[in-house]
Amino acid sequence: MNGLVHELATVSSPDAEAISTVLHAYGAALKARNVEEVLALYTTDGVIMPPHFPASAGIDSLRASYTRIFSTIELVITFQIEEIVLMSPEWGFARTTAEGTKTILALNESEPHANQELFIMKKENGKWLIARYAFSTMKPLVQNGIQRS
Amino acid sequence: MNGLVHELATVSSPDAEAISTVLHAYGAALKARNVEEVLALYTTDGVIMPPHFPASAGIDSLRASYTRIFSTIELVITFQIEEIVLMSPEWGFARTTAEGTKTILALNESEPHANQELFIMKKENGKWLIARYAFSTMKPLVQNGIQRS
Repeated sequence: MNGLVHELATVSSPDAEAISTVLHAYGAALKARNVEEVLALYTTDGVIMPPHFPASAGIDSLRASYTRIFSTIELVITFQIEEIVLMSPEWGFARTTAEGTKTILALNESEPHANQELFIMKKENGKWLIARYAFSTMKPLVQNGIQRS
Repeated sequence: MNGLVHELATVSSPDAEAISTVLHAYGAALKARNVEEVLALYTTDGVIMPPHFPASAGIDSLRASYTRIFSTIELVITFQIEEIVLMSPEWGFARTTAEGTKTILALNESEPHANQELFIMKKENGKWLIARYAFSTMKPLVQNGIQRS
């Protein structure tokens, strides 16, 4: 988007800085594969929309979803923040890309990871939290002769 | 989410109804494979985040992205609205699922289509428009022995 707006939004606003901090904390919780640490970053009605699975809405459903994810894969990724936009005193969104390594635990196989993310953030009791989270792979549709879908 | 909140949000608010109308117009524009009809539903700084491709930001980039999409596939899908939330007088979001048929034009092959979508909507000059749009497939990770990624 507009580089200046991006910079102003991410540098000069305490709210944007707080949102950025939450996103990096989320990356750290993924790396640690710590379900409760992840859940503490979500609103109680939070929703994740993971590719290939129906959305998980609410803390109990999120717990089941992250328990599944962390039992299957290890993610060591870093979020690059493309933009943070404040929509109201209580709502913001962040668009990010994440690169790093995904390890399939059962196979002990690692591969490069490249996703893009859209986070809707909500400020509750003075704390920015993840309210909705959608993402998708940025891997090419066809790679090494394998057609992805 | 909460069925009652969902119903109130989608039934009783003129803004939520207007957002719903835009989403169904988007579905119709996809079916018609009409690039300009799609672009008219986006803000000028709108962003699509299509799986397997980097985000396309701004009308020119969106035009290129939809031209590519419509030259490759035909989508006949219907959006089911899971929730619409108004975040401020100018911002809202919608979470949807879309089912229907995707046809790969080069192969003339059709397959069932099931995606989930997160739309961030912005009201500009009295009209709700798509500001950010992320989505992913809901197809199982492994299907007919094919591992998807």
